[in-house]
Amino acid sequence: MLQDGTPIFSLAERLFPICRSITGDGVRETLRIIAEHVPELTVHEVPTGSQCFDWTVPQEWNIRDAWVIDSDGNKIIDFQQHNLHVVGYSVPVDKTVSLEELDQHLHSLPDQPQAIPYVTSYYQPRWGFCLTHHQRQSLQAGDYRVLIDSELKEGNLTYGEILLPGESSQEVFLSTYVCHPSMANNELSGPVVLTFLLKWLNSLPRRRYTYRAVFVPETIGSIVYLSRNWQEMKARVIAGFNISCVGDDRAYSYLPSRTENTLADQVAQHVLQHTDENYHRYRFLDRGSDERQYCSPKIDLPVATVMRTKYGVYPEYHTSLDNLTVISPEGLFGGYTALQHCLQVLENNIRVSVMVPCEPQLGRRGLYPTLSQKGSGDRSRMMMNLLAYADGQRTLLEIAEKIESPMWELVPIVEQLVEHQLLEVLDPSP
Amino acid sequence: MLQDGTPIFSLAERLFPICRSITGDGVRETLRIIAEHVPELTVHEVPTGSQCFDWTVPQEWNIRDAWVIDSDGNKIIDFQQHNLHVVGYSVPVDKTVSLEELDQHLHSLPDQPQAIPYVTSYYQPRWGFCLTHHQRQSLQAGDYRVLIDSELKEGNLTYGEILLPGESSQEVFLSTYVCHPSMANNELSGPVVLTFLLKWLNSLPRRRYTYRAVFVPETIGSIVYLSRNWQEMKARVIAGFNISCVGDDRAYSYLPSRTENTLADQVAQHVLQHTDENYHRYRFLDRGSDERQYCSPKIDLPVATVMRTKYGVYPEYHTSLDNLTVISPEGLFGGYTALQHCLQVLENNIRVSVMVPCEPQLGRRGLYPTLSQKGSGDRSRMMMNLLAYADGQRTLLEIAEKIESPMWELVPIVEQLVEHQLLEVLDPSP
Amino acid sequence: MLQDGTPIFSLAERLFPICRSITGDGVRETLRIIAEHVPELTVHEVPTGSQCFDWTVPQEWNIRDAWVIDSDGNKIIDFQQHNLHVVGYSVPVDKTVSLEELDQHLHSLPDQPQAIPYVTSYYQPRWGFCLTHHQRQSLQAGDYRVLIDSELKEGNLTYGEILLPGESSQEVFLSTYVCHPSMANNELSGPVVLTFLLKWLNSLPRRRYTYRAVFVPETIGSIVYLSRNWQEMKARVIAGFNISCVGDDRAYSYLPSRTENTLADQVAQHVLQHTDENYHRYRFLDRGSDERQYCSPKIDLPVATVMRTKYGVYPEYHTSLDNLTVISPEGLFGGYTALQHCLQVLENNIRVSVMVPCEPQLGRRGLYPTLSQKGSGDRSRMMMNLLAYADGQRTLLEIAEKIESPMWELVPIVEQLVEHQLLEVLDPSP
Repeated sequence: MLQDGTPIFSLAERLFPICRSITGDGVRETLRIIAEHVPELTVHEVPTGSQCFDWTVPQEWNIRDAWVIDSDGNKIIDFQQHNLHVVGYSVPVDKTVSLEELDQHLHSLPDQPQAIPYVTSYYQPRWGFCLTHHQRQSLQAGDYRVLIDSELKEGNLTYGEILLPGESSQEVFLSTYVCHPSMANNELSGPVVLTFLLKWLNSLPRRRYTYRAVFVPETIGSIVYLSRNWQEMKARVIAGFNISCVGDDRAYSYLPSRTENTLADQVAQHVLQHTDENYHRYRFLDRGSDERQYCSPKIDLPVATVMRTKYGVYPEYHTSLDNLTVISPEGLFGGYTALQHCLQVLENNIRVSVMVPCEPQLGRRGLYPTLSQKGSGDRSRMMMNLLAYADGQRTLLEIAEKIESPMWELVPIVEQLVEHQLLEVLDPSP
Repeated sequence: MLQDGTPIFSLAERLFPICRSITGDGVRETLRIIAEHVPELTVHEVPTGSQCFDWTVPQEWNIRDAWVIDSDGNKIIDFQQHNLHVVGYSVPVDKTVSLEELDQHLHSLPDQPQAIPYVTSYYQPRWGFCLTHHQRQSLQAGDYRVLIDSELKEGNLTYGEILLPGESSQEVFLSTYVCHPSMANNELSGPVVLTFLLKWLNSLPRRRYTYRAVFVPETIGSIVYLSRNWQEMKARVIAGFNISCVGDDRAYSYLPSRTENTLADQVAQHVLQHTDENYHRYRFLDRGSDERQYCSPKIDLPVATVMRTKYGVYPEYHTSLDNLTVISPEGLFGGYTALQHCLQVLENNIRVSVMVPCEPQLGRRGLYPTLSQKGSGDRSRMMMNLLAYADGQRTLLEIAEKIESPMWELVPIVEQLVEHQLLEVLDPSP
Repeated sequence: MLQDGTPIFSLAERLFPICRSITGDGVRETLRIIAEHVPELTVHEVPTGSQCFDWTVPQEWNIRDAWVIDSDGNKIIDFQQHNLHVVGYSVPVDKTVSLEELDQHLHSLPDQPQAIPYVTSYYQPRWGFCLTHHQRQSLQAGDYRVLIDSELKEGNLTYGEILLPGESSQEVFLSTYVCHPSMANNELSGPVVLTFLLKWLNSLPRRRYTYRAVFVPETIGSIVYLSRNWQEMKARVIAGFNISCVGDDRAYSYLPSRTENTLADQVAQHVLQHTDENYHRYRFLDRGSDERQYCSPKIDLPVATVMRTKYGVYPEYHTSLDNLTVISPEGLFGGYTALQHCLQVLENNIRVSVMVPCEPQLGRRGLYPTLSQKGSGDRSRMMMNLLAYADGQRTLLEIAEKIESPMWELVPIVEQLVEHQLLEVLDPSP
């Protein structure tokens, strides 16, 4: 079992420089490295032009190089220095332009003059460069040589999928995305944390549920995946988590499913309450990731989102400032642990029933202090509370909520009481 | 469509001087003038002695003149100066009395020494005069000649009714009262605002619902009306509004139906939340108008009340101070607009369903920005939120509540999405 | 009807010196004195070794004397001075021990150095003495003669039971415990208040419900009682109250049943809200008395607890400081009155229905002022509110909650309206 976040951070460091987009070799290279950790990963290629619900798989985009050279021959913008310098899905260009014309293709952030913004144009042919506002303001009139050595072709959209079978064909669904170039919290944290969650799931002696996990490009990737799998998923998925922004250590956050009351929502809130009672509770109105697809009316899967600091609310978001200093081993391990607790809660969410009327006599079984004195007995409270609510109607999660204890701390107590024939395990609720 | 409250205020000015009571020619004259605006108005006469549930229609009361003359021959109280000077339903009197005897028939307000109070005695034979407390304190010992030239006779109770047919036989019910003498917010504001709402409803190219509106004397009038129409109304009315105190501009207020959760309650709260988020929420325990009858247990109609400043809570209430300076064109137009929005919400409260799984690709339809950049896309949020909740289960009102947008702003977006075949309109929920 | 708490306090004074435990002659003597007030009390004896659910009735314990004498011959601890000096259920001992050995059998409270703690060891053979921490710290090295002249034998567990029949075989259950030695709020207040409640119930001309009341030793006594009666109780008990800590006057408190929403919970909260709006609301997680048995999953009786200051939260709790100065006639009378109101609410919790549509005309029946004037009519509000909610669906308790009036103040109004044929009483809701 993972002891800290160092291995997760190391994987993030390795994947960080790769230029990812919603299609192309950057995604393939990323999935290849992830597969070193989880060899069961299957890579799927979906051809350009494939119809997926209301969408069409776009052309595949790859880029070899891009730069701007000023009239003095200085390479003032260089894709090799930072892959955010090029607008994602830029069409090829190779010409000399005036500053005035160049400026119409530049993107910068006046409010964050030292950040290179992250800009894409997936569905409209465009080209452009991104740079810091400081640099943009220093540009002199004159001619500029611009080159974008990119390629748009009939190719494929690439995604990774893994199915880890469990005792039940009911599934827990895990999703993250692999379409962002060099940014760390949003979004390398999701893929690297999911990778290590899958390693842990793979190591378990038994799994109650089957786990379905995907590494997809955001939006188009989840739509493509759903268009191929949604009916099976509707029948099988009991809970799912969208994994994004799980790498910094400034906060814990929860964004509900559309209906706000699925099992995934209950689990996420329970875990975060006992992880950080000041965790941020967003609304579905604040959504902005693949829960938009998973929770859309006709799909309606029970998918909630557990995060550290949410996309859109931290200053480095979608800029070059969201680099490896924003995330940390501690931050990643916190995100990993919260999600691991979510899966542990799901695996152990059984109904239990006390087997005797009235309180059992724990004392004669060595489970309770025999000398009654002011203050004694406090340490047996959790066990007594569990027994008081083990009515065969409530799930262990519901009992844990009621008695305000982390559900994962109740699991060993359940085992002890079952052993003493004071508690029986009923079928899990459907 | 009405652009401001000037015409509403003008009608109030015209109706203000008329001496109304729960019966008599004042009501008839008021209804005659209202009918100039809404010729469909039907005037009903219900004979004295008619039994209506637990009540009996009282004798009809009319008054020609009334005054008090002091021993110096000065007419110190004069009905012609203000019709509040006479206790409503005063029996005729013509005699000379001492100050001591007179005083037993006087009503004034020590706490508001400059206000003439509004006093009635519908069901107990009495006579009396109302005056300012200042004037009362200045009365000198001596003889006073008092005259009330009133008449109580076997006559009728008069009310106005209008039915504006719609596509459905389901009805929206609107009620106000016409029994108050010269007071403005309570209650000329209700009749004049309802008059202009009816003019607007009359002008609509189509109406989904049938509208039933009444101008009745308070309490006895609504009881009379219900005793004749309640079974039909129970079968047809889906929502109703009691219209009272809609003329000043100090506040917006809501008083729920008895059950607090009818469609009318939902609509009223939605409209007021988006009209003035600090609107006053009263309880049914604070009731005091005809909702007492409409919401009584055996009647139980879904009637809520939308007001500006509620009866009983403003200082001028039920005194001569509630004059035309308390209301204003702006105040009346605010009350009118809030109620108009209520009716618009009802007319458009349909269920809608998105037609594709996952989010539709709005970009290729020109409905979404194609360049993804930090901050872009905010202006499309309302459309995306509408689509996210258009699950065919929720009404448009429920969606509007969920996405925290005024429902009337969603209506044009629904039309645009229907045109693009992204949204389908289902039958309205029952 | 009891006018103040003096007789209740007198009974407490008489019972205070008796040395009670979960078995033995102290319980028998206590029940004998209570039976002087309620002769219907039946005393049951349950033999040692009887199996009751998961528990076995322990040996019967009696004690004649106990003391510690120091090497100078001074009797430094004397059971005759305070029965808390001996650990409850101490086995007999008669020997000379060193201070070191003695100390292993001593119990005191460093945080409350002037209090003798209350310590028991029912299910593990032990002996021990309790003393103030001050005294303990003053003990000198040397030999001590210790004597506990107690007896553990095959005997009986003793409890008292009373059934007061009512018109219905449905039952209200009342329980308190008689196992505490000389402590006042916890727990003589429960037995003495219950005694006077039973005297009052006995005096009623009619009782709608049958009353089942028990005086049991805590935990083992309620378990013994339930093991013999639970199926009948499950079928008949509609509400019950655990009566404990009802003698001081520092607070009112409520501890819910396990499910928190039984009739007993509704009644208790209603009564306490109108008794002291700042009453303490505990959670079932704060439980610590016989509700642990009555509300256990397989028993699940609708039993709530109404208290003054809750066990465990006041400083004198379970020490010699919980003496007769902690309780008072006023405190006991407050606890008595709150519980009496609970029973009155239950007895009168009928459904009522207004008999006419719309508001009835109260004026012609002399039930309403006939002169309408600003401010008039306020005193008729409670009657009008009752009529407004008397829809035949709500119980009188639900109406009282809705209109924010103490239910016991509505009872005479109901009677008046029934007399005027404006209200009809329906069968009480099940």
